[in-house]
Amino acid sequence: MRDTTQTQTMQAVRYTTFGERPELVEVERPEPGPGEVLLRITASGLCHSDEVVMSFPEEGYPYPMPMTLGHEPAGVVEALGEGATGVEVGDAVIVYGCWGCGVCAMCASGREQLCLRGMVSPGLGRDGAMAEYMVVDTARHLVPIGDLDPVRAASLTDAALTPYEAIKKVLPHLTGGSTAVVIGAGGLGHVAIQLLRQLTSAKVIALDVGEEKLAFAREMGAHETVESNADAAARVRELTDGIGAEVVLDFVGIDATGATAMAAVQVGGAVVCVGAGGGSAKVGLLAAPYDVEVRTSLWGTRASLLELVGMAKRGEIRIETQTYPISQALQAYADLHDGNVRGRAVVVP
Amino acid sequence: MRDTTQTQTMQAVRYTTFGERPELVEVERPEPGPGEVLLRITASGLCHSDEVVMSFPEEGYPYPMPMTLGHEPAGVVEALGEGATGVEVGDAVIVYGCWGCGVCAMCASGREQLCLRGMVSPGLGRDGAMAEYMVVDTARHLVPIGDLDPVRAASLTDAALTPYEAIKKVLPHLTGGSTAVVIGAGGLGHVAIQLLRQLTSAKVIALDVGEEKLAFAREMGAHETVESNADAAARVRELTDGIGAEVVLDFVGIDATGATAMAAVQVGGAVVCVGAGGGSAKVGLLAAPYDVEVRTSLWGTRASLLELVGMAKRGEIRIETQTYPISQALQAYADLHDGNVRGRAVVVP
Amino acid sequence: MRDTTQTQTMQAVRYTTFGERPELVEVERPEPGPGEVLLRITASGLCHSDEVVMSFPEEGYPYPMPMTLGHEPAGVVEALGEGATGVEVGDAVIVYGCWGCGVCAMCASGREQLCLRGMVSPGLGRDGAMAEYMVVDTARHLVPIGDLDPVRAASLTDAALTPYEAIKKVLPHLTGGSTAVVIGAGGLGHVAIQLLRQLTSAKVIALDVGEEKLAFAREMGAHETVESNADAAARVRELTDGIGAEVVLDFVGIDATGATAMAAVQVGGAVVCVGAGGGSAKVGLLAAPYDVEVRTSLWGTRASLLELVGMAKRGEIRIETQTYPISQALQAYADLHDGNVRGRAVVVP
Amino acid sequence: MRDTTQTQTMQAVRYTTFGERPELVEVERPEPGPGEVLLRITASGLCHSDEVVMSFPEEGYPYPMPMTLGHEPAGVVEALGEGATGVEVGDAVIVYGCWGCGVCAMCASGREQLCLRGMVSPGLGRDGAMAEYMVVDTARHLVPIGDLDPVRAASLTDAALTPYEAIKKVLPHLTGGSTAVVIGAGGLGHVAIQLLRQLTSAKVIALDVGEEKLAFAREMGAHETVESNADAAARVRELTDGIGAEVVLDFVGIDATGATAMAAVQVGGAVVCVGAGGGSAKVGLLAAPYDVEVRTSLWGTRASLLELVGMAKRGEIRIETQTYPISQALQAYADLHDGNVRGRAVVVP
Repeated sequence: MRDTTQTQTMQAVRYTTFGERPELVEVERPEPGPGEVLLRITASGLCHSDEVVMSFPEEGYPYPMPMTLGHEPAGVVEALGEGATGVEVGDAVIVYGCWGCGVCAMCASGREQLCLRGMVSPGLGRDGAMAEYMVVDTARHLVPIGDLDPVRAASLTDAALTPYEAIKKVLPHLTGGSTAVVIGAGGLGHVAIQLLRQLTSAKVIALDVGEEKLAFAREMGAHETVESNADAAARVRELTDGIGAEVVLDFVGIDATGATAMAAVQVGGAVVCVGAGGGSAKVGLLAAPYDVEVRTSLWGTRASLLELVGMAKRGEIRIETQTYPISQALQAYADLHDGNVRGRAVVVP
Repeated sequence: MRDTTQTQTMQAVRYTTFGERPELVEVERPEPGPGEVLLRITASGLCHSDEVVMSFPEEGYPYPMPMTLGHEPAGVVEALGEGATGVEVGDAVIVYGCWGCGVCAMCASGREQLCLRGMVSPGLGRDGAMAEYMVVDTARHLVPIGDLDPVRAASLTDAALTPYEAIKKVLPHLTGGSTAVVIGAGGLGHVAIQLLRQLTSAKVIALDVGEEKLAFAREMGAHETVESNADAAARVRELTDGIGAEVVLDFVGIDATGATAMAAVQVGGAVVCVGAGGGSAKVGLLAAPYDVEVRTSLWGTRASLLELVGMAKRGEIRIETQTYPISQALQAYADLHDGNVRGRAVVVP
Repeated sequence: MRDTTQTQTMQAVRYTTFGERPELVEVERPEPGPGEVLLRITASGLCHSDEVVMSFPEEGYPYPMPMTLGHEPAGVVEALGEGATGVEVGDAVIVYGCWGCGVCAMCASGREQLCLRGMVSPGLGRDGAMAEYMVVDTARHLVPIGDLDPVRAASLTDAALTPYEAIKKVLPHLTGGSTAVVIGAGGLGHVAIQLLRQLTSAKVIALDVGEEKLAFAREMGAHETVESNADAAARVRELTDGIGAEVVLDFVGIDATGATAMAAVQVGGAVVCVGAGGGSAKVGLLAAPYDVEVRTSLWGTRASLLELVGMAKRGEIRIETQTYPISQALQAYADLHDGNVRGRAVVVP
Repeated sequence: MRDTTQTQTMQAVRYTTFGERPELVEVERPEPGPGEVLLRITASGLCHSDEVVMSFPEEGYPYPMPMTLGHEPAGVVEALGEGATGVEVGDAVIVYGCWGCGVCAMCASGREQLCLRGMVSPGLGRDGAMAEYMVVDTARHLVPIGDLDPVRAASLTDAALTPYEAIKKVLPHLTGGSTAVVIGAGGLGHVAIQLLRQLTSAKVIALDVGEEKLAFAREMGAHETVESNADAAARVRELTDGIGAEVVLDFVGIDATGATAMAAVQVGGAVVCVGAGGGSAKVGLLAAPYDVEVRTSLWGTRASLLELVGMAKRGEIRIETQTYPISQALQAYADLHDGNVRGRAVVVP
């Protein structure tokens, strides 16, 4: 017989003190309310956004405190709250992280990441996946993964979804014979390279700093790599017969990469600003190639996540992962903080 | 003090006997379950689909029997089921009629009308709006209308949404100087004419049978009207310098109108088959204008319904209505059946 | 019998001395070479670009000197060069001003304004329309206007084509219930307002400086007008229930209007930078509304010009003009320079 | 010294007698007129359309008689007519076969294949490429190929361009995890399979008759092959979890394949009718999956041909060819007629 007293607590990685590193603590195991779903977590990806959250100042901090981290969850349905429908206990799932209101014009059109009432996310406003269990607000935010490896699947929810959505925005530019530039071949960029190779016939040029990262980019499928510095745009032009690239995806997002993007893109081409580096690209009739299109892209839609699961099931996308048991979760965060993660760090409870 | 025994029943127009006309009966007033919403109905539009439902054979009949009719509801929120959020008691709303699962790929992309698990609708599988009260499955399917007249607003949910979605599918064809043909200027077509005038600068040519209907089409904004017969396509070509129309919208959907559409559309143009007449258009490389695009279009998305409410609030769209008290609802159905309704018949409980 | 000696000269407005105003001079009447077409000019619109050309420094000046001004020509075909086909002597036409190579990838896709070998234009590299006759490089660049008034039609080639192309780029955003902001209601902006009213059901908010210009914007069809200053974006948000506009078109193009545009556009919305003011909008994930799309737009395509002629023939667009005989052309340039032209100044030889 | 008398004649494969096979004859070598270009042919692809031309009845035959066949030309520029610009003598080129007027709305938008005045083509109205020399009407219709093998490049002009254009029309449907069906893996279909593999991540299912053709389809990259018969659509549904394919491309175009296409495509999916088999697909609201999109697609644009040359230079597309010297050209036509050509037959003068 199950000892329910024992199961009432669980381990969780929580951000508890402003300006400090997260802590591994024992907390009460949550119960699903009406319409909610309880997951037993099978994998939980780390993201640079976690670091950003822990760098916010105390004044005006937007989230509850303390809060369990983790917005890339994979799990198994453990229990359904009253009235919850659409999934069954035992289903293997990943969690779509943009929890919109479901009612506004953006949610109605399937873009919950732009919810007009403001979305919340697990680990970014609600207790997240860096724990043994978590509660999901509605079955709508669960995506079945079948027998996909949860360690590989967890990071589809952000590390793959974010570049996939960015690429979809500019796919019509990536016709035969085209070129796409990826600035930053890290957690998101290394997936972007793979996605471009799968979804288009474009030549992929990756920009990053240092030969190790450039070698990684080539391993992921980049046709060409260029050291990311003030000469990078000129090098891109050389590689494109002087015309520039049809598409530039900037996963860094500082002023310098914005300038590189605008200098590397061709007349009539497109730039997508994905990186949260705080910088910007400058767009004006005389300050940019003619008829250029510059977009920002935040996370992605649930429909896109379903498409990615389809690609993952076919083995078309492989997120590089380093796994840690939950007992080593703080080390995972330290490695992320120190730039010692190749691909994506994933905690397995 | 309110006598709750009295309020437990209500009037409803129900389809009760196969092959017979609907009946006005006294039924139990429904209660909202978990997550559901109870509406007090303020207006309920009639639709030819109601007639189609009542013509289905008994064998294989897809809906519960008896069933309250009505899939164009306007109402006021009377009560919220447990856990229902997103609306408040007293809100004036209309009901989005495509009740999808919310979870599948189509629902995820905001196209509940194409729900892969099969949508249901009030009046088409669930008890509908031709009653004093009705239950809606989730707050997600309610669209606030503020102080819009519910009689005008009710039919936005189908009579306006269906042509609006059809037009949106082919809007890129309706650039400056273009021409759009509307076949059938009835309940949906007369709204299509208005929408085309509002949303595009296209010349609108309406086809229908008989001068009365053509005069109505001109009143709604058609620039030209043509008797809908075997010569109609040739007349459209005359009116378009021999080139044909960029867009043809067929609200009839029989073989004859399909043939007219294919003969009236120009090279590179578009046809949308909206009418449920059971016929088809024939599309082949040598059997149609080159590079033609032929689509079917079913009902519409919730995002589109929100846009239509925006248009209605600005007075940009006006559905012609004939109102009947619920006591005259059977007469309304008789008038609809006999073709004696100009625009849309609406029952006001 | 025709005295060919007499017809060998003609009047022309030419830019002849760096830093000086243009001059009205007698020059040799040109002859069409192989494939070229000679036009007798019937109307010639003035544009602020003419002023920009005359402000370029002598060093690095990109055009031949002297050069006849005028890139908005209407005329009648006077003679065909050897091998020129597609038009007949006597045809009334306007001239598409983006003279691309016809061979490169951009020209192949109908975007001669982005010609990869660099386009030239009459009055911007080749002798233009501010004269009694001009030579057009190929019949492909002529668009028949039938019996349209040439004074009204001349400015379709730029003053209407440029805003039309900008609007077409973002039309999918302008669905029912949407809002479009026009910054700058001058030569191009006043046509943009009319085009938005014709092509969409959007609410049009015009921004400009001073009540006279705002009154003009309302006369052109703007639903709302706002003084263009640091508070303008906040006012736009008030007028859009706090959400911002789906589309902002900036016909000024300085840093201040770029900032206004980015502050006035909604999440998921679009900005088009049309004005050659030398400024820019700043686009970054955290520096702009999420999923925003910012484009530049230069002039337009020949296909778009054909569509505009279709609209003009239906009376759907009316360019406000002030006409001057060619003997008063220098006064026209002075009025343009001093900001004393309402709508568009047109010289009629 | 060159003996110009000798060079005045050349060999050509001409259709000379109605209902008979073509003949290899000695004809006068053509000279380029003003604006025209003379090519020395280096390769000339055969196409089933040639057979169709030779099966037209004498009455109403649309082309001059006799006429040199061949509409897939590769060559080297031999001479320029007066005023011809944009290419140089010695340039290696292929010929874009849709010779539109260049002036109408379709040509203006880069769609010469839909020219409103009616396009002509070499070998289909003008003397074609099945000869030692041919004249091209304008340099605009030449696409440089650099050092690409002309035998491989010739068939890009039709055998690759036609499926490429068809695929581009429906690319937005081919997102991650999608499926595309190719009906008919012959001259065009075998290139379609390759293009789908290059341009998308879609699972490709090929339908054809007989194991030999299905094996060829797998060799070209098809993930699955299905015998093309009355059960084929059901098999496609099995391979797509019961949902059907996002896209079906029909390169046969008879009634049976039209029916298969409509039965195999999913709700919201797309069908492209490419094959000139004379049949059609039936499209109606109740006669097809909801919100389906059915298009016809004729040949392609010059912009697309430029993109294909870019892909060919990267080795991303390989047209299977059987080469014949011009002395064996009649045998090539016999093999084509008898269905004994694997991929594309190409004559090398």
